[in-house]
Amino acid sequence: MNSKTSKAKEFMTQQLHPDGSLRHLITLEGLPRLLIERLLDRAQSYVRPLGEKPPASRALAGRTVANLFTEPSTRTRVSFELAAKRLGAAVVNLEVQLSSRIKGESMLDTIYTLQSLHVDVMVIRDAETGVHAAVAAHVAPHVSILSAGEAHVAHPTQGLLDALTVRQHKGRFDNLAIAIVGDVRHSRVARSAYHVFNVLGVTDLRIVAPPALMPELDEFGGCTRHTTLDSGLKGADVVMMLRIQKERMAQAELPDADRYFATYGLTPQRLAAARPDAIVMHPQPMNRGIEIASDVADGPRSAIRDQVRNGVAVRMAVLAEVMAPRGVP
Amino acid sequence: MNSKTSKAKEFMTQQLHPDGSLRHLITLEGLPRLLIERLLDRAQSYVRPLGEKPPASRALAGRTVANLFTEPSTRTRVSFELAAKRLGAAVVNLEVQLSSRIKGESMLDTIYTLQSLHVDVMVIRDAETGVHAAVAAHVAPHVSILSAGEAHVAHPTQGLLDALTVRQHKGRFDNLAIAIVGDVRHSRVARSAYHVFNVLGVTDLRIVAPPALMPELDEFGGCTRHTTLDSGLKGADVVMMLRIQKERMAQAELPDADRYFATYGLTPQRLAAARPDAIVMHPQPMNRGIEIASDVADGPRSAIRDQVRNGVAVRMAVLAEVMAPRGVP
Amino acid sequence: MNSKTSKAKEFMTQQLHPDGSLRHLITLEGLPRLLIERLLDRAQSYVRPLGEKPPASRALAGRTVANLFTEPSTRTRVSFELAAKRLGAAVVNLEVQLSSRIKGESMLDTIYTLQSLHVDVMVIRDAETGVHAAVAAHVAPHVSILSAGEAHVAHPTQGLLDALTVRQHKGRFDNLAIAIVGDVRHSRVARSAYHVFNVLGVTDLRIVAPPALMPELDEFGGCTRHTTLDSGLKGADVVMMLRIQKERMAQAELPDADRYFATYGLTPQRLAAARPDAIVMHPQPMNRGIEIASDVADGPRSAIRDQVRNGVAVRMAVLAEVMAPRGVP
Repeated sequence: MNSKTSKAKEFMTQQLHPDGSLRHLITLEGLPRLLIERLLDRAQSYVRPLGEKPPASRALAGRTVANLFTEPSTRTRVSFELAAKRLGAAVVNLEVQLSSRIKGESMLDTIYTLQSLHVDVMVIRDAETGVHAAVAAHVAPHVSILSAGEAHVAHPTQGLLDALTVRQHKGRFDNLAIAIVGDVRHSRVARSAYHVFNVLGVTDLRIVAPPALMPELDEFGGCTRHTTLDSGLKGADVVMMLRIQKERMAQAELPDADRYFATYGLTPQRLAAARPDAIVMHPQPMNRGIEIASDVADGPRSAIRDQVRNGVAVRMAVLAEVMAPRGVP
Repeated sequence: MNSKTSKAKEFMTQQLHPDGSLRHLITLEGLPRLLIERLLDRAQSYVRPLGEKPPASRALAGRTVANLFTEPSTRTRVSFELAAKRLGAAVVNLEVQLSSRIKGESMLDTIYTLQSLHVDVMVIRDAETGVHAAVAAHVAPHVSILSAGEAHVAHPTQGLLDALTVRQHKGRFDNLAIAIVGDVRHSRVARSAYHVFNVLGVTDLRIVAPPALMPELDEFGGCTRHTTLDSGLKGADVVMMLRIQKERMAQAELPDADRYFATYGLTPQRLAAARPDAIVMHPQPMNRGIEIASDVADGPRSAIRDQVRNGVAVRMAVLAEVMAPRGVP
Repeated sequence: MNSKTSKAKEFMTQQLHPDGSLRHLITLEGLPRLLIERLLDRAQSYVRPLGEKPPASRALAGRTVANLFTEPSTRTRVSFELAAKRLGAAVVNLEVQLSSRIKGESMLDTIYTLQSLHVDVMVIRDAETGVHAAVAAHVAPHVSILSAGEAHVAHPTQGLLDALTVRQHKGRFDNLAIAIVGDVRHSRVARSAYHVFNVLGVTDLRIVAPPALMPELDEFGGCTRHTTLDSGLKGADVVMMLRIQKERMAQAELPDADRYFATYGLTPQRLAAARPDAIVMHPQPMNRGIEIASDVADGPRSAIRDQVRNGVAVRMAVLAEVMAPRGVP
């Protein structure tokens, strides 16, 4: 067991109550398969067709959820906010940067303050690695920390919603080929997808990236690596596109949007390499015409809007789980 | 029928369900009189005297309203937020600029995301013409788009609250002289007032502005045009003042606040030209001492605070109408 | 009776209904002892141990509370927001600077607008002296103004939570020595503490500050003044530390954090001058290592987290009191 695995074990232990139920959700790495499947089942029970009212519940009545985001206007913040409100919780939004010290106030003083205000769940997005684990190590036993994104490392609710989307469309995780395409090196979405699909038994997992945006070799173990779309998408059941940042294109020696699109952009033509019933996913926001053509994003094989709908269902499931744990069956 | 009228018809069609009930509210132009009167009746039923609790209802229980404003701290945002909450809806506030592309994300991706999060009503303020109609053309059948201000073009809930205020004070729309005073050329408030009073049968509608701030001649058809307050206010029942922007004063060759006030500012003396029971309105925020004297704004003939109170009632009525349409009677 | 006292009387009158019950809370100066004790009793009834759900009530159902803060992300804003929500009120947050004129809009127009939107309670933080009293003098009879901080002058809910914290730990206010330490001159926390402890009968009240940060001699009457920690803390039951601003250290001729800490920082060694069962308080945010050592802030004699928990209880009590007054018993 190398040090990475030990660290995963340590995180896992920290995330679970002694009875195995979920306390925090900081990473999907090393979570028990039964727990992940229970979360997906619960999330599925919260999914409603477009146009129907979402389920309303009082599971979190009397509970308080605080959203701690560095910027307030993200879709993930809104998704968590609506998930909490639909379970009957009170929600407060704070714009904070836990990783830096504002007005001399340390991260932990902010956390202790929220805890003393009877905040039960803190949903945290932070650009610095380790903030979530540090917070989780200090809060009182009844408080749960949920990650809404941690640097390039983890975005666990995104991983769960991706898994739920695949399950809805494919009905299985074995005998599936899933390709993760783009700036894998810097992507928390890719890492959480990697972990959840590993736990769920996906064996044909591929990463497709320009050489400069490939992750180090000690990560993404078991994945095949491809530097061309044609090779990576061949026979794939699921194509997960990632967002590319402008500054990364230069790093990949594809210094403008056109050049990037010509090489790694997903077009209907390129998608033809995948299976005829392959689905296309993207965590959003999309760079249309850069990593994905609008024809594909809005086309019949796109599951992108399902991902958004599943996102709020997954966040409801996680909130309900940490506030009313029932133990691993 | 000229092209403007056709365009109005087209918008109208787009705004209504096939049974004639309200789906979106983007412009008042061309809305049926019966529908507008029903909205005013419903709004009136939500009006309470100052000091009494506003009505509480569960008409929007389980529904979600998203406020999409470019700046968060406007009175209109708060008015819509309270209207939605008093009907039992969940409300999320987003600070977004739909007309520009933020982080490469297009307007429609933001809209589709909110739709997939089971947002039922999107309240949008935008400085660019056409954003509301473009969004309305793309959302799913169960989603309603409400304008909270569109460039210089339309501010329909303001038009409705202005009409409700006039109805409360005057009890009629026929045989009324209404003067709209100030920067009519650039005012969405003036345009929505023009449309609603036209539909409601006001025949003596006047616009009063410095020549440079007069609208083009193909707009405000049927209004008389006045370049002096004395002429425009003569015998008026209702005086609607508009907010003047500093840069517009220069354009009007009245390059400072004192000069503007001396020529177009509403003082008690100038108001004497109107009928003795004339009311004064202003959409706020007011430039006291520039377009209106404090004596008038706070005086016995001011209906300005009634407008604010009516604003939340009108927004409740519109929300209730689009979420529970009953068809045109 | 000097002019200061008259002013206090005037404020007091303005704050109370004719039957003696609380209408506004702008300053604690001159409030009747019975009223303060009733607020503390009510607040105590809202206190719950960490890990238990806070009390839920419908005392403010149908009521609307507006938070008017110049910056949105303060702990006091969140504390008021949660207090209001736990009593069943609708809450809107506005980022406004009442003391300056934004877009030409005056403070009172903002206030009248909120009032017309049926806002029942306005919670205001402002850096300018007198804003709260000016607003309170103009609002309709059913509207209450609560200060969440006024310049260097007053922070009444902080004073109440400080008093509640002392009462919980010491069980009495007579025969208590309380030392207020730090930049007393510029501190609204110190002033509100001074007023509340005076009303509650504390006779041994001490201020400890560098000479340059001592208040003028016509303030803090009855307090002993100390320029060293050793002298001020001797035999104290309660040590209230204040936050120091960087620019004030220079003014105090202690031009860096280390120098300030060496002279006025509270360490376990310095705390030994106080009574063995002395408690330590701080309004937060703390400058750890500048005005207080982490050993003390997180140590067994720290009541700092109790203060936060008491803060939301006190704000619930004040909101319930102004919305449902019962008259002085």
